[in-house]
Amino acid sequence: MAGDGSDQRALQYEQTLMYGRYTQELGVFAKEEAARLRDSGQRRSRALDLLEYDKGRCAKCRICTVRCQKFLISRVGEDWIFLILLGLLMALVSWVVDFCIAICLQAQKWMYGGLDSNVFLQYLAWVTYPVVLITFSAGFTQILAPQAVGSGIPEMKTILRGVVLKEYLTFKTFVAKVIGLTCALGSGMPLGKEGPFVHIASLCAALLSKFMSLFGGIYEEPSLAGIKNESRNIEMLAAACAVGVGCCFAAPIGGVLFSIEVTSTFFAVRNYWRGFFAATFSAFIFRVLAVWNRDEETITALFKTRFRLDFPFDLQELPAFAVIGIASGFGGALFVYLNRLIVQFIRKQKAINRFLMKKRLLYPALVTLLISTLTFPPGFGQFMAGKLTQKESLVTLLDNRTWAKQGIAEDFDYIGHSQAWTHPQVNVFVTLVLFIVMKFWMSALATTIPVPCGAFMPVFVIGAAFGRLVGESMAAWFPDGINTDGTIYPIVPGGYAVVGAAALSGAVTHTVSTAVIVFELTGQISHILPVMIAVILANAVAQSLQPSLYDSIIRIKKLPYLPELGWGHHEKYNIRVEDIMVRDVRYITLNCCYRDLHNVLLTGHLKTLALVESTESMILLGSIERAQLQALLSLQLGRSRRLEFIRERAVGEKRRLSVASDTGSKDGGRRASQEVRFQISTEESTFSPVRPVSQKPLKPALKRPSVMEPPAEIPLSPDDNSGIALKNLFCATPEKEGLEKNNNVEPPELRKPSKRVRISVVEPPLNLKSSQWDDADVEDDMTIREITEWEEQQLDEQVNFSNCKIDPAPFQLVERTSLHKTHTIFSLLGLDHAYVTSIGRLIGVVSLKELRKAIEGSVTVKGVKVRPPLASFRDSGTSSSENEATEIHKLWDRHKSMSLPQDHAPSESGEKTQ
Amino acid sequence: MAGDGSDQRALQYEQTLMYGRYTQELGVFAKEEAARLRDSGQRRSRALDLLEYDKGRCAKCRICTVRCQKFLISRVGEDWIFLILLGLLMALVSWVVDFCIAICLQAQKWMYGGLDSNVFLQYLAWVTYPVVLITFSAGFTQILAPQAVGSGIPEMKTILRGVVLKEYLTFKTFVAKVIGLTCALGSGMPLGKEGPFVHIASLCAALLSKFMSLFGGIYEEPSLAGIKNESRNIEMLAAACAVGVGCCFAAPIGGVLFSIEVTSTFFAVRNYWRGFFAATFSAFIFRVLAVWNRDEETITALFKTRFRLDFPFDLQELPAFAVIGIASGFGGALFVYLNRLIVQFIRKQKAINRFLMKKRLLYPALVTLLISTLTFPPGFGQFMAGKLTQKESLVTLLDNRTWAKQGIAEDFDYIGHSQAWTHPQVNVFVTLVLFIVMKFWMSALATTIPVPCGAFMPVFVIGAAFGRLVGESMAAWFPDGINTDGTIYPIVPGGYAVVGAAALSGAVTHTVSTAVIVFELTGQISHILPVMIAVILANAVAQSLQPSLYDSIIRIKKLPYLPELGWGHHEKYNIRVEDIMVRDVRYITLNCCYRDLHNVLLTGHLKTLALVESTESMILLGSIERAQLQALLSLQLGRSRRLEFIRERAVGEKRRLSVASDTGSKDGGRRASQEVRFQISTEESTFSPVRPVSQKPLKPALKRPSVMEPPAEIPLSPDDNSGIALKNLFCATPEKEGLEKNNNVEPPELRKPSKRVRISVVEPPLNLKSSQWDDADVEDDMTIREITEWEEQQLDEQVNFSNCKIDPAPFQLVERTSLHKTHTIFSLLGLDHAYVTSIGRLIGVVSLKELRKAIEGSVTVKGVKVRPPLASFRDSGTSSSENEATEIHKLWDRHKSMSLPQDHAPSESGEKTQ
Repeated sequence: MAGDGSDQRALQYEQTLMYGRYTQELGVFAKEEAARLRDSGQRRSRALDLLEYDKGRCAKCRICTVRCQKFLISRVGEDWIFLILLGLLMALVSWVVDFCIAICLQAQKWMYGGLDSNVFLQYLAWVTYPVVLITFSAGFTQILAPQAVGSGIPEMKTILRGVVLKEYLTFKTFVAKVIGLTCALGSGMPLGKEGPFVHIASLCAALLSKFMSLFGGIYEEPSLAGIKNESRNIEMLAAACAVGVGCCFAAPIGGVLFSIEVTSTFFAVRNYWRGFFAATFSAFIFRVLAVWNRDEETITALFKTRFRLDFPFDLQELPAFAVIGIASGFGGALFVYLNRLIVQFIRKQKAINRFLMKKRLLYPALVTLLISTLTFPPGFGQFMAGKLTQKESLVTLLDNRTWAKQGIAEDFDYIGHSQAWTHPQVNVFVTLVLFIVMKFWMSALATTIPVPCGAFMPVFVIGAAFGRLVGESMAAWFPDGINTDGTIYPIVPGGYAVVGAAALSGAVTHTVSTAVIVFELTGQISHILPVMIAVILANAVAQSLQPSLYDSIIRIKKLPYLPELGWGHHEKYNIRVEDIMVRDVRYITLNCCYRDLHNVLLTGHLKTLALVESTESMILLGSIERAQLQALLSLQLGRSRRLEFIRERAVGEKRRLSVASDTGSKDGGRRASQEVRFQISTEESTFSPVRPVSQKPLKPALKRPSVMEPPAEIPLSPDDNSGIALKNLFCATPEKEGLEKNNNVEPPELRKPSKRVRISVVEPPLNLKSSQWDDADVEDDMTIREITEWEEQQLDEQVNFSNCKIDPAPFQLVERTSLHKTHTIFSLLGLDHAYVTSIGRLIGVVSLKELRKAIEGSVTVKGVKVRPPLASFRDSGTSSSENEATEIHKLWDRHKSMSLPQDHAPSESGEKTQ
Repeated sequence: MAGDGSDQRALQYEQTLMYGRYTQELGVFAKEEAARLRDSGQRRSRALDLLEYDKGRCAKCRICTVRCQKFLISRVGEDWIFLILLGLLMALVSWVVDFCIAICLQAQKWMYGGLDSNVFLQYLAWVTYPVVLITFSAGFTQILAPQAVGSGIPEMKTILRGVVLKEYLTFKTFVAKVIGLTCALGSGMPLGKEGPFVHIASLCAALLSKFMSLFGGIYEEPSLAGIKNESRNIEMLAAACAVGVGCCFAAPIGGVLFSIEVTSTFFAVRNYWRGFFAATFSAFIFRVLAVWNRDEETITALFKTRFRLDFPFDLQELPAFAVIGIASGFGGALFVYLNRLIVQFIRKQKAINRFLMKKRLLYPALVTLLISTLTFPPGFGQFMAGKLTQKESLVTLLDNRTWAKQGIAEDFDYIGHSQAWTHPQVNVFVTLVLFIVMKFWMSALATTIPVPCGAFMPVFVIGAAFGRLVGESMAAWFPDGINTDGTIYPIVPGGYAVVGAAALSGAVTHTVSTAVIVFELTGQISHILPVMIAVILANAVAQSLQPSLYDSIIRIKKLPYLPELGWGHHEKYNIRVEDIMVRDVRYITLNCCYRDLHNVLLTGHLKTLALVESTESMILLGSIERAQLQALLSLQLGRSRRLEFIRERAVGEKRRLSVASDTGSKDGGRRASQEVRFQISTEESTFSPVRPVSQKPLKPALKRPSVMEPPAEIPLSPDDNSGIALKNLFCATPEKEGLEKNNNVEPPELRKPSKRVRISVVEPPLNLKSSQWDDADVEDDMTIREITEWEEQQLDEQVNFSNCKIDPAPFQLVERTSLHKTHTIFSLLGLDHAYVTSIGRLIGVVSLKELRKAIEGSVTVKGVKVRPPLASFRDSGTSSSENEATEIHKLWDRHKSMSLPQDHAPSESGEKTQ
């Protein structure tokens, strides 16, 4: 009765609020609403408020508008709109970033040019400018969002694998990444734009998707949204990666392929069109902006080449292209190795490290100082075309004229920047070699600076320079071309540069699609076969020597990613799940009590726990999320339940008082109340009146599936300060779940969603609400000792799993599943862990960690192959497979000897599972 | 004792055979061996014979050679060699086929040109030539391998999905396909080469892999080979599809992408390099052959264009490109529809059909006659450039000169074939429109002819013509180009042709990668954005109207393929497995007898059967292949076992006789023998002496996993004429498994391998061999009645599953798994069926068929959406999910009320599972 009253009051209050809002403008209301919704996680259900508001005002008109919107969105297809918006946004971002970078670089040139009277001042300007920019970028990123550091492709790879990296897809990170990247690239350091753009595009997609869901929430049923969003978000992120590369290079096809190669293990072909669509649109807008800005006359490639079409290359030049490919393969592997070496060196040197850590901005500043000093044009920079920006270098390298026609650089009468490559005293070959060598280590070093930056473009330029070097050598060697009959076709060194660029970048990233990117960047496909051959050779060499740059960073950062199985490693087929599985599985039984739950939660740290029939049978019934169990425990020991207990005690006391009439005294009543309490609590455990729906608990709880409520309503944290056992639990957990901190690269906080393959019934705990309304009228008068006592009792009760979300079919493997199969299944389904069963009996668990260890253990980076110790055991005769065989046989025997399988021999079967 | 003797004799016989072979030459021996091995399925173990042979002769030399070979193969990596060989082979095939086609077409031209005095003779020559070729092609294919008919992409799609289509990858099919294709294309009909080449490449890969395994078998452990081959074959076939497209168009990148789009649902990125490598090599060799043959000066694109580079198109031309895209989308859908309509029309018209079926070659001849009559150059062909071959048409259409400069065709002073498009009386626009319209239905009709042919190239040409039409119109409309400032850039109609070709072929095949193919075919990428925009628009339109051509053929042929889920179909998320699953699951229990097995095998037709603990508990223990059960039954009722029984009876009789000394008479002995037989058979069922390893059957049977024997050794067909129960079984099965025959397109014989995700122990039935050696000395003297009696006894015995290969973890779903998830899982893992369980209890099964029905049922082709009847039931209140809920609750209750879960209430739980 009292509850009804408070309920009504709350309703009235809400209505008042609604009316209060009526006086505001719709726009303001909508804005507020949007802001509020962004904060709270439950957009969908609330968005209906808007509709209700409309009904109140000028109903017909509003409804009509909403319907039109609904129709439009649902008809045209939300995905299309989303992808177009994403493409548009990213094109704008890319263009603006490019524009700002160009201005920054121009400003540096202008400063440098204006001070040509004094070399020292010139040097100061040349050096200070990038140092300031890089330091600002590093500081800004560090303060706003440290997650924005680096390329972001390794993180995206991990996220697309199904792991949620906290804070990696927030607005803060977006701002930090865009501004940090602009400053970093504006400094003129050998850094790339492509990797960060993959991350920025993903950020865009994530934010846009949040934004869209504000509108989308109106017409989507919440139950469907959950299922949809799970897969849709990943699909959209995959498309976003394609957009990132696409709008960075104006290379839609290459972007799609590159993003597939870099981020996916198994690619869903039904997403293909998304990437293509968004990347094409993005690249289109990106180039159209250039046309509108009068940079270009029409839409063309970013680094357009003009090689001759009719005879692009001679068949006999192919060996030279192959040489470029193989050399690039070694070069790429060396680059990855060098990069890792620098990171590891800095980490290992504790003294340096501590110093650098204290002054976080010192390292970037020092590196920038070193690099910009060496490229100072009047200094050493004159021998390595130091005054050219990255873009200018690339344009000149892809030039279709030959620099070394007669072996010496004398014909440099071209317009533009090609002059930078010539030097009065030094041969063009020397310039090229110096450029390659210096840029190589500079790029490897620069990419370790903690600013948002990629390594693709620097590597691309180095590759182009290497190709150019080979091309110029060929041109010097065969001045009239390698001729066949009659016509003279001189060698085009620019074509070699194209080949070299594709090959080296392919080697570093372990991708083949750099070939396509190169075609789209240059706008010419005539060198397709040389490029393909070189890229494939480079990949073959590089992949056998080193992991890709991204995998290398993943390992350094210790991101939770499943490494690829190398090809042709036969020993992989010989390792089985039984060799790598963890045999000591944490499980809960169907008839356990809350104390067991509590203990399991305290000791274990897995995200889901196995539910078995009983300790004797060990038959796997399903898995339960840790959060669900915590919620169960919270419910059992929670404040509301205790208050209910107090109320019931009070009711019992009142009844006793009325029976005892007016004979009872005050202190006698207090003593009696404790007796009653015990009495009630024993009643509870037999009749369980606490849970009034306990006998048929699910009938009312199960609604029609289409109107299921979001399952997240169970309180996952203790909402009061009195739960002592709970406090232990929740305080103990985060410490256990934390990752060990690394020094330089911060490991991201991980939250692994139970990306489960089978969906189980979502059962909203309805009795939660019914026990909440009466908090107001019962007074919490229990002492700490009483609470502890009460909790001890509660802990001894048997767990009621009926309100718990159980996944009835977690993924199962058998002992003899090979590592290869396990790897395939894990990467196909994005699994986090899988249970190992033997005829329904739980015998072990394999998680991503074990799998990763097994894969990395057998193929180390150094090429030394270590077999896991257990695998050799198996081969040497003491067959562990007898275990399973005996199990089958036992089961069969059991069935044979008696018709119904009712006698578990507890001790025997118990010891088998170890 | 007698057994030992016969054993020795058999051994001697085998040795004699071996020595007999020693006299033969090694080559002959190897050939024979190869032929024998190809027939029998057990290459690996036998290939060791070769090694043994070598040891006998000049051991060291041979061993050294073998070792060298082994080293080479294992070092360089078998995959590389395989892919290079595949690429080389396919390039040669492609080139030879092209060469032959060119000769055929030249011959026709020559004949037609030589007879220019008489129009009638000319007509005869023009018409007869293709009719003869097509008829020959159709007849040849029909006789040699009817599987070679059609493009082969639908079949490859199905095969890559994991379904084994019999006879689709044999040498016969290869020969039929190559020769049939050459003749079909040589006739000049509007048919394509690309689809069949995908099939031919796959055939090549399959044959090559068989060939390679002859060598590979020497060094590979058989146990690993099984695991490896399963996944490797699919990987190689996927690479082969890329090679097929790559060597056909000299388009490696486009080939890889096209094959991914067309054949895969989920693409394993680790296979990416395979496709690229093989396709690049193949394309390279294909083009190098052209250079060596002096067709080309150097390696260039197949249909090289020479559009201007600096200003390929104006921004304001983009709407025209978009129009091409949208129109192509409608055109593509129309083409697919038309093609299906023709096939269905011919099938439905019983009268026509019966007539055509009788004279199988009449239909191809009639169609060819019709088409070639209409293209006869002096006749109607003059208005549609009829005298040009497909290749010539395409070259002229991609020409970079404008035909209709002033709106009329007066400037045709070009060299070459472009003249064909002009006509003294008729406008070039009319010619183009006529060409498009006529070729459109001709191509749709021609691709229904039962010869090896594809539809890609005809569609590509039609698209190019359509693009040209739009381009010429634009050129006529804006004679000076849509200009911006100053410079005049005239419109390039050839660019429009490129866009149109990509868009229409993309629309028909539902692929985006036609864009890439077009770039590689023309050697120019300058039109990348228009092409991409048009292709995406065309795809968007076509995909919303019709399935792709390949999906359409799959539906017509009723191939076992899982259709894609359309995007944006929200109602899919509302269908659950419980709505579509089959509740009447065929299962066997752990304690069933052979009679149950027999009955289940007789009635069911699923390829695997569920093994449950008992009918009461219904706990799923695993699944057993049908073949395994048949083998079990064969073993139990087989001849060898019966002979053993007879022998034992004889031994028992002998013993009895020796006990009874010389008092027994002849006829008394016979009567006694029957008693003994019964006695022995009861002994069998108690002590089971028949199976001497029965008490511990698995210990000896389980060898170390690395030397496991191939599991296929169990005889799958009855090897004698006496098994009566078996005969029933095996005669009944094929009838049930057969597919209903279609009229026109033969449904392929299907064999679905249990592509299982988890690998179980392979347990070879070792007692098979031990019971075979004594066939010789025991006489089968049982009468039919006796056999029947004996079999009845045998059927009543309990099944011993210990020698049976059980998959202990078949794939399980739960009732509430959504259709979307189910679809994803099925296509990811290539599943055939999955069991539906509820807390370990088997309650249903979902196979590919149900899934296909559910998907097709809810989205029909016509756009009418039918919801499955059960889904609406669920929404209307009578919740079927209560079932599961009650189950959980019951289980929980059971555990709550008693500590050990030993009391199944059989009747109650039995009726719940239905």
